This record gives sequence, structure tokens and C-alpha cells, in this order.
Amino acid sequence: MRIAQVAPLYEPVPPRLYGGTERIVSYVTEELVRRGHEVTLFASGDSRTAARLVPVTERAIRLDGTNREVLAADISRQLGRVFRHADDFDMIHCHVDYLAYPFAALVRTPTLHTLHGRLDLPYLKPVFREFPDVPLVSISNAQRAPLASFDLTWAGTVYHGMPLDSSPFVAQPDGYLAFLGRLSPEKQPDVAIEVAKRVGMRLRIAAKIDANDRDYVERVVRPLLDDPLIEFIGELEDDRKAAFLGGARALLFPIDWPEPFGLVMIEAMACGTPVIARPCGSVPELIEDGRTGFIGDTVDELVEAVKRIDTIDRAECRRVVERRFSVPRMVDDYEALYRRAVSVRQAA
Amino acid sequence: MRIAQVAPLYEPVPPRLYGGTERIVSYVTEELVRRGHEVTLFASGDSRTAARLVPVTERAIRLDGTNREVLAADISRQLGRVFRHADDFDMIHCHVDYLAYPFAALVRTPTLHTLHGRLDLPYLKPVFREFPDVPLVSISNAQRAPLASFDLTWAGTVYHGMPLDSSPFVAQPDGYLAFLGRLSPEKQPDVAIEVAKRVGMRLRIAAKIDANDRDYVERVVRPLLDDPLIEFIGELEDDRKAAFLGGARALLFPIDWPEPFGLVMIEAMACGTPVIARPCGSVPELIEDGRTGFIGDTVDELVEAVKRIDTIDRAECRRVVERRFSVPRMVDDYEALYRRAVSVRQAA
Repeated sequence: MRIAQVAPLYEPVPPRLYGGTERIVSYVTEELVRRGHEVTLFASGDSRTAARLVPVTERAIRLDGTNREVLAADISRQLGRVFRHADDFDMIHCHVDYLAYPFAALVRTPTLHTLHGRLDLPYLKPVFREFPDVPLVSISNAQRAPLASFDLTWAGTVYHGMPLDSSPFVAQPDGYLAFLGRLSPEKQPDVAIEVAKRVGMRLRIAAKIDANDRDYVERVVRPLLDDPLIEFIGELEDDRKAAFLGGARALLFPIDWPEPFGLVMIEAMACGTPVIARPCGSVPELIEDGRTGFIGDTVDELVEAVKRIDTIDRAECRRVVERRFSVPRMVDDYEALYRRAVSVRQAA
Repeated sequence: MRIAQVAPLYEPVPPRLYGGTERIVSYVTEELVRRGHEVTLFASGDSRTAARLVPVTERAIRLDGTNREVLAADISRQLGRVFRHADDFDMIHCHVDYLAYPFAALVRTPTLHTLHGRLDLPYLKPVFREFPDVPLVSISNAQRAPLASFDLTWAGTVYHGMPLDSSPFVAQPDGYLAFLGRLSPEKQPDVAIEVAKRVGMRLRIAAKIDANDRDYVERVVRPLLDDPLIEFIGELEDDRKAAFLGGARALLFPIDWPEPFGLVMIEAMACGTPVIARPCGSVPELIEDGRTGFIGDTVDELVEAVKRIDTIDRAECRRVVERRFSVPRMVDDYEALYRRAVSVRQAA
């Protein structure tokens, strides 16, 4: 199949450090190439791929707030390039949100639009109301909740997958709990710290601090760090992440927001590390309570979960990721959606 | 002809206060309706028009920096609506810049894209390089200068027009000079003040102060205002603008940027008020030196110009606007471009 992959331009594909969407686009693209498809990747020029790369910008733009204008101009160029050549593709798979929607109705090639972000922002409602026929893919069923009352064209839910060898299984972890993510209110690092202190276990925090979270970090998190149990190790390079996650007895994920997927949960499980999480967003779809971790709402429940963590079989966590969250499984799902879209289009 | 007018969503059409582009879109739309065309205006819901209004948003969004995301979403909805129904129109006339360009190649209906802003911003270059076939309209020949080396499809230059009765002719002005516009470095209010002081004439400044110009105003302009000759009267309501311009002996327009058009120059001339301007951007195309004003580069030259201002025939200024800058003339030009585009498309 001749497939166009339309990536965001914020980060290269794959990203050097952060960039969940670009990472997934890379996994999908490389696996499709491996399976013999003729794939064209529309992405920033510093991307690396075995597909044909159409470099829309010389390098990734990053998002620093000052360059939204520039970004819109670049996306406009990107979409021009993709859809001007729509007839060269059997399938156009977009990862760039709403700016691509108006094009779907204008070309004969079927399109698919994976939603990578949260959908509960008020300004998105009119957008989805406007495009009831655009074929959408959610990355969890929970992600769709804010649009439940809308009449949309859901092609399916495709859970993210990850390469298993980048996260080797660790049978015997160290004695610490892990927190990995941004230090922001909705990730609730303060709750993770409280849980660790209550059970008297060491908590290692690997986290990025975004500019607009600095106030929160200074006010709420910093005062809690002054404790021998709590260790803040800063931002982690990608190649140290697996060791950090694999060495943990559990990943604490006490989020307070509608997480659309949460790659870190499957990364932890791939290493054999169970996840203790609050029941927000995708969590109940990714974590099987009592099997690959525990789901608890309150600090008390999370504390109880940590105490029972040794009842979880680490090998089973690994097996669940192999079965449910591998790259081949993700690409099986997308291939099935591509085939269905193409046959529907041919029948029309 | 069935014509779509695609307006920005920043301000209603027409705007309540500022909003040069929305004002022009309104003039064009109403005159086309008057001439019997079937016009559809895609604009904010608080617009007022005799055309069929497609309200894309409930009200205009305004630009305050925080809502660029929202704006892009709204424009995406707007373009979806316009181009999904492209076949319902003989002509699609866009005033929304580059986000519309990728659609031009995807529909059979011819499109025309009037450029309302400055084109010398670096991030625009790749955009124009990407879309050499999109039919563009400049609002002055000077506006094209930054793109002179590009291979673009220029449909023409169409100078803005204005309704003559909103700016009545004033034969006998008061004794002051006028400055009207934003107080920003590129408008050079400090130069206007220096010129007025040098010739010993009263200068009345009607100006808006944008948030990001406040520093400049406090540092550079405010100290110059403490002089009996200089009067700062703040932001002017639309209905007081004509009286302010008409009462002036001359409009001082000592700009230092590539002004793409500069409506205030023709508004002043319509009242009979000559314009004294620096030779930037559109100025030499709008002002005929010695006939409707004077063009001077240095403060000395501008001072000399003010001294000779009585050699300008105010009635001639008015006549020039009637002939070159009326709404019917502007719409004649656009109609000619529409007809040409439609016949080229039919021949193809």
C-alpha cells in the first residue's frame, strides 16, 4: 500500500528526547516499511526514517509559544504538499489534529486521523461538530469521553505500541518506587511523595520541569523533597529511562487528569514493573487491577496498593505488554483500518 | 456570479473600531450585492451584511495572544465550510492568508487571495515558495517587493477603496497638523512631533496604544508631549475620524516601515487633507508629490513640505480619491479579476 504519514513538526521523527506523538509516528512508519509498504513520511527535515522523507521544514520547530504563527505557516505548507499529491497515495494517515480535517472531504484518497491529545478542551467542541465525517482514531476509549454526545466517525481505538527490546525485563528490582513525568499539578507528584513517605519506601523522581510549572514546583513540590526517602534526579535521557523504570518496585502514577494514553505505564510494565495509578483517563484500560498493578483513588488506597505490590507477578506485566502493547500489534490494528478504509472507498 | 467572501475572524465585518481587512471585506461584499451578485460571506456571527452570512463563530475572536490555538481551530472550521461547498460558487475570494492556500489546488472553483499584510517577514518566504500557483492580489505594488525574486501567480494589484460620503470634503480646515494611527516605532510619532515643533504648528495626535508599545510610548513619546503645540487626544471613535482628518491642514505620515496600503492616507485626502509622508511602502503609489501632498525622507524635507502645504489644492485631493480610491473602482477591479479567473478556468 502507498501510505502517507503526516507527522507534527514540533519534534523530529523519532524525537531526540520528549515527543510522544513523534515517537509513535516513527514506530508506525518503520514497521510499515518493514512490512513492505511504500511509506512517505511528511515531517521535519531532521527526522530519520527508512521511509521516503518529505522534509517540510529544515528542522523541528519546537513549541516555545513565540512561534505559533510560524508553525501554522509550516503546517499549511505541509498539508499543501500532502493533499496536492493525494492521488499518489492509497491512504493518508494524519497525526496533526484539526488543521487536516477540512482536507479529508476534498480528496478521493481515504484519510485517517489519530487523536493524540486530550479532547476535553472547550474550543475543540465546535471543531468536531463541524467535521462529523472525518475518520478519527482514538488512542484509548476514555479519550473519547468528552465527545460522547457527538455524532462522529470513529474508525476505532488503536492503543499505542512500543518496541519491547528498548525496555528489557528486570526480574529483581531495587527497593524504590518510581515517578516519571513532568512535575505539574495534574501529575500529582505531591501525592506520590506522600504515598512513599506513608509506606516508608524510597521514591526516585525523574522529571522535567516546564517553564509554566516552575511556580507550582517551587511552591508545592520543592518543600516536600527535603526528606531522606525522596530523591529528585531531574530529566532522564531516553537510554537511561528503561533502567530507571525496570529497577523500580512500582511506578507511581497518581494522575488527576484525563490522560489519553500514558506511554510511561506500558514502558514500566514492559520492564516488569507494575503500575499504581489513579483511575483517570486511559488508566483502567491499560492497567488490570491486581494483575499488572493496582488502581486506587485516595492516598489511603494507593498506600495499601504499595503494601501489596509483591502479589503482582512481574513476568505477567511483561507478557501483557508483549501481547497488548507491541509495535506489531499496533501496526496490525492500523493496517486493518487502512484496508477497511480503502475497500469502503473503492465500493463508493 | 455566485461569490464566496472569506473574511478573517478577528473582528466582525464591518469592524466596530479597528480592523482594516474586515472593513475592506465589508465594502467589497456590500458593493457586490448592490451590483446583483449572489454573495456569501463567511465571517464571525456578529457581522452585518446584505449578503448571505455564514456565521463561522458566534462572535469575532479578537487577537489577544492567548487564543491562537482557538483561532486556528476556527479558521480550520471556516475553510472546511467554504471548500466543502466549493462547487456552489463561481469564485472564492479569500482574505485569510496562507491557511487557505493549500485548498486552492483541490477545488475546481477559481480562488483569489488578497494579501492584506506586510510580506517581509522571514517565515512567509517558505510559504510563498510552496504555493507558486495560488492566485494572489496585492494591495499595492510595493507590497510585493519582498517577494520580487519569487515565481508567483500575481492576479493583479487592487488598491483599496472607501465610501466617499463617510469622509465629507472640508474646504476650510483648522490650523493643525494631524497624526492618526498606533503609537509605535514604525509609525514614528516622534518624527511627527519634531516636524510640528520645528514649523511651530499645532499637532493633534489621535492614536491607539497597543500593549506591546507601552514601553516605547513611555520612553520615547511621553516626554515629547509636554509642549503647548502637541495635543494627545487618545483613540478616536470611527464617527469622529473624518472630522479630525478633515479639520487638519495636513496629515503627517512619517512612517518607517513597508506599509502595504495605509487607509488613513486616502481617508485624509477624501476630506481634502493633503498627506505629508516618508517614501516607504505604498506611499509613492498613493500620494502624488506636489499634487495630493508631499513625500520627504528627512525631518528637514518634511518641515519644508509643511511650509509649502498651501500650494496643494484640497479639492484636487478629494477628486483623486473619487477617481482612484472609491469602493466602486475597487469592486470594478475585483470583478474584472473574477471574470478573468472564471474564463481561464472554463477554458481549461
